[in-house]
Amino acid sequence: MATTEYNVTGMTCGHCEASVREEVSEVPGVESVEVSHETGRLTVTGADDVSTDAVLAAVEDAGYRAQRA
Amino acid sequence: MATTEYNVTGMTCGHCEASVREEVSEVPGVESVEVSHETGRLTVTGADDVSTDAVLAAVEDAGYRAQRA
Repeated sequence: MATTEYNVTGMTCGHCEASVREEVSEVPGVESVEVSHETGRLTVTGADDVSTDAVLAAVEDAGYRAQRA
Repeated sequence: MATTEYNVTGMTCGHCEASVREEVSEVPGVESVEVSHETGRLTVTGADDVSTDAVLAAVEDAGYRAQRA
């Protein structure tokens, strides 16, 4: 199990959080996702080999930008 | 046919617009809904007897507040 933190820009409300959560939850190996539009923080917990690139791409698919914290 | 304008507070993004559009579209008699989170303006077009109270309640169901413009 590994937990990785990201900073996401562009989220303004709970709907934005839900979009990010939905996309990132679909990344292989991801087990839990916490995200806050207030802090911009995204916390991803899952298998040790969850792909950072896949998480970043998932955030982009949701319409936002992220980088590793 | 009648067109009525409302001011909506609290929308921050396109997801918010979509939530308002979805709820207001379900009000009996409503035929088209335009909404902008940037201006807060909601324009409802439909039958002459569309209920203002029902539109206001629909906006509230979506999680926002509105008043007649």
